[in-house]
Amino acid sequence: MREAVSDTVLQDLGESVGGRISTSESVLLQHGSDMSYHTPALPDAVVFPQTTEEVAEVVRLCRKHKLPMIPFGTGSSLEGHLMAHRGGVSIDLSEMNRILEINVDDLDATVEAGVTRIQLNDSLNPKGLFFPVDPGADASLGGMAATRASGTTTVRYGSMRSNVLSLKVVLPDGRVIRTSSRARKSSAGYDLTALYLGSEGTLGIITELTVRIYGTPEAISSAVCAFPTMQAAVGCVIQTIQMGIPVARMELLDAVQIDAVNRFTGSEYEKSPTLFLEFHGSEAGVVEQAEAVSAIAAEAGGGDFRWATTTEDRAQLWKARHEAYFAALALRPGAKGFITDVCVPISRLADCIEETQEDLSSTNLLAPILSHAGDGNFHLSILIDPSDASELEEARSVNDRLVKRALAMGGTCTGEHGVGLGKMKYLEEEHGAAALDVMRSIKKAIDPDDLMNPGKILPGPTVSQ
Amino acid sequence: MREAVSDTVLQDLGESVGGRISTSESVLLQHGSDMSYHTPALPDAVVFPQTTEEVAEVVRLCRKHKLPMIPFGTGSSLEGHLMAHRGGVSIDLSEMNRILEINVDDLDATVEAGVTRIQLNDSLNPKGLFFPVDPGADASLGGMAATRASGTTTVRYGSMRSNVLSLKVVLPDGRVIRTSSRARKSSAGYDLTALYLGSEGTLGIITELTVRIYGTPEAISSAVCAFPTMQAAVGCVIQTIQMGIPVARMELLDAVQIDAVNRFTGSEYEKSPTLFLEFHGSEAGVVEQAEAVSAIAAEAGGGDFRWATTTEDRAQLWKARHEAYFAALALRPGAKGFITDVCVPISRLADCIEETQEDLSSTNLLAPILSHAGDGNFHLSILIDPSDASELEEARSVNDRLVKRALAMGGTCTGEHGVGLGKMKYLEEEHGAAALDVMRSIKKAIDPDDLMNPGKILPGPTVSQ
Repeated sequence: MREAVSDTVLQDLGESVGGRISTSESVLLQHGSDMSYHTPALPDAVVFPQTTEEVAEVVRLCRKHKLPMIPFGTGSSLEGHLMAHRGGVSIDLSEMNRILEINVDDLDATVEAGVTRIQLNDSLNPKGLFFPVDPGADASLGGMAATRASGTTTVRYGSMRSNVLSLKVVLPDGRVIRTSSRARKSSAGYDLTALYLGSEGTLGIITELTVRIYGTPEAISSAVCAFPTMQAAVGCVIQTIQMGIPVARMELLDAVQIDAVNRFTGSEYEKSPTLFLEFHGSEAGVVEQAEAVSAIAAEAGGGDFRWATTTEDRAQLWKARHEAYFAALALRPGAKGFITDVCVPISRLADCIEETQEDLSSTNLLAPILSHAGDGNFHLSILIDPSDASELEEARSVNDRLVKRALAMGGTCTGEHGVGLGKMKYLEEEHGAAALDVMRSIKKAIDPDDLMNPGKILPGPTVSQ
Repeated sequence: MREAVSDTVLQDLGESVGGRISTSESVLLQHGSDMSYHTPALPDAVVFPQTTEEVAEVVRLCRKHKLPMIPFGTGSSLEGHLMAHRGGVSIDLSEMNRILEINVDDLDATVEAGVTRIQLNDSLNPKGLFFPVDPGADASLGGMAATRASGTTTVRYGSMRSNVLSLKVVLPDGRVIRTSSRARKSSAGYDLTALYLGSEGTLGIITELTVRIYGTPEAISSAVCAFPTMQAAVGCVIQTIQMGIPVARMELLDAVQIDAVNRFTGSEYEKSPTLFLEFHGSEAGVVEQAEAVSAIAAEAGGGDFRWATTTEDRAQLWKARHEAYFAALALRPGAKGFITDVCVPISRLADCIEETQEDLSSTNLLAPILSHAGDGNFHLSILIDPSDASELEEARSVNDRLVKRALAMGGTCTGEHGVGLGKMKYLEEEHGAAALDVMRSIKKAIDPDDLMNPGKILPGPTVSQ
């Protein structure tokens, strides 16, 4: 049983953030929950800093009193990253939401960690600019950095790993660092930017980011194309990438997911594996890309392209894709989604999906599939009744077999959602004991008191090297 | 004064690598030198392992006897990375030169660390594939990974940071890890791949890499365009990138460097700041890109494009660019090059180059400039008489002011050559004391005995946290 945090400490914490602290049950519950099946675990308090210096002061106080610290963005994570199962203080960064600088000549922007991707794009779009990383949810950029997020445009623009130039981080001892300069590349020492990307709050708290931005393409067009089989659809994806066609989005939905979308949005897509495609470029370039992919698709046995070239039609098409998860949930009212996240070399993607579909068919579970096919990443939304322990157990078993299948194919247990609590048990199988020891020794070196989002990512005790 | 390594230890080391060990003066000198102005410092022995297991055995022996270990690729580094100023064993990986696997569907290749980039491309090109990272020298891929190298194509294809999917590494304790799977992306824990990229042998020895490869573009064309000023040339580069034109190479040579090229190759380029450009894409796409850049160049005051579309003409053009360094050296027979390597946000590139040219004009030094302009990275080849201490001193001063200028502009002291010995003294100014402490604590956690390429990258004592 953990000790309650004393009133004096709470008062000091409150003073460090101008009184913006809460211990109300509803606020604690909101900050000890995420969008996943994981059981909520409440922090002792939530603070709402507005500056890096306030975050640093909170960190110094928490360190002094040995309180765990868990950074919080928008609460959209999926693997239990936010659960305060050892208590402590949730550091909500949503009030650090200023866009600090947009450099048009350098195509970069510096923002506070609480800025969300839609907020950033709302600032950029009128200037003819955009930020590409799109994980679906309107996540905070700090959270996206902390989980090394990616999404629908990664095949063209890369994940957070490629799109973050530099981070401002509050270290576990309260000191503040900038991980890199604004230069496009550097060989000046260990890559601390990359180390903090995907560190999930376990090595410090990200308070600012400098990200790459892009000019809005002159032309954009989208299309949908159905295929007779998964193999055919993935074959089209592989061929497209081999040809070097710079497709901007290449999303694959299985027949169950297409059915869900049709029911939810009233669309009438053919119930078979389907690619949602987007092309960015010059007017002529987009036409050329689309014609090339259309020819590849036809050869692979795909149907005609259903085009969406007007802004409205495209919005409609991508609404169908982006609402795929809600469409899935609507297949079973009251259900919760247990979301899986493996990623495999693309040559194994069709096999991995088909073997998983076969596995699913031997269960009672309904689980639409959608895939960032160009990256080899796909998600099952396993629809479970959260009050039925046996369903949760069955979903866990499916996920367990899925992860082992992906690892055997040379893949990873998580392509973009992160480890949190949910994937900890697979890390040793994925990386091996020695690599995990390296990670543990880094954690211990940077956070010797184990106060930064403790008990996440790394299973077992830290090494005593 | 360091102790000599005993014959028994040398014998054990030799046995661990099938007798492939040398202590001959010439071999020691070759392995304690690089292509730079740094003073050679010889190791006690050089071993030539042929497998990861042999490397691991060497590491275990060196650890047992507290001998420093320095991995060696082709010896083309520029910042004293290879100098054995604390003695120990140079681990030459050139006999680990097998190409282990080429996956066409996944567009990746797995190679041993001693494979060079030209060797890899010789294997890939007949299959319609290529590996893009091109630092000029025919470096080993292990060395390129260890310095986070980049080069002429980074503006389009990224540096080693973007093009390495996974590494096999022998840890300082002799255990072997793989840093990641072959999946295109992953959020599974700390990014050990990125940590080892740029670690310069200080955290372990890279023995294998899995890298991204690409389909050979359908069409390639190249052009050369002269500009009246640096500002005009860089303005063209900035505008091109803002428009999202996916130019494959965008190299900038100053008038002095152009003069050197003309003298060396017999070419007759106009003696003014000049862009060397390359376009990759479909037939129509390449034409469209080139027309767009040509229009931008004209608007910026640039001259006509000199085209090279045939393979021979292109080879000729890029030969001129690739031999720029030798052309520079030929300006002053017997001279050695002191090569600088700052990288700044591209909006500051023209300022940084012009201020540096002005600075140079107040010295007696001759220093042609060439720039990977799309990345904001540029090199001075300061031509010095290696036997003249005052010239070396003057070159050091120019570099010192250059680095400080670049840092003040939000840049980095090294865009692609790494820290080695040469840039150590700038790391604290670039990153700050706290970030350097984080790096030191990582070094100490992973290499507690400080045996892996000791005394490189990190200045001063490691933290005693």
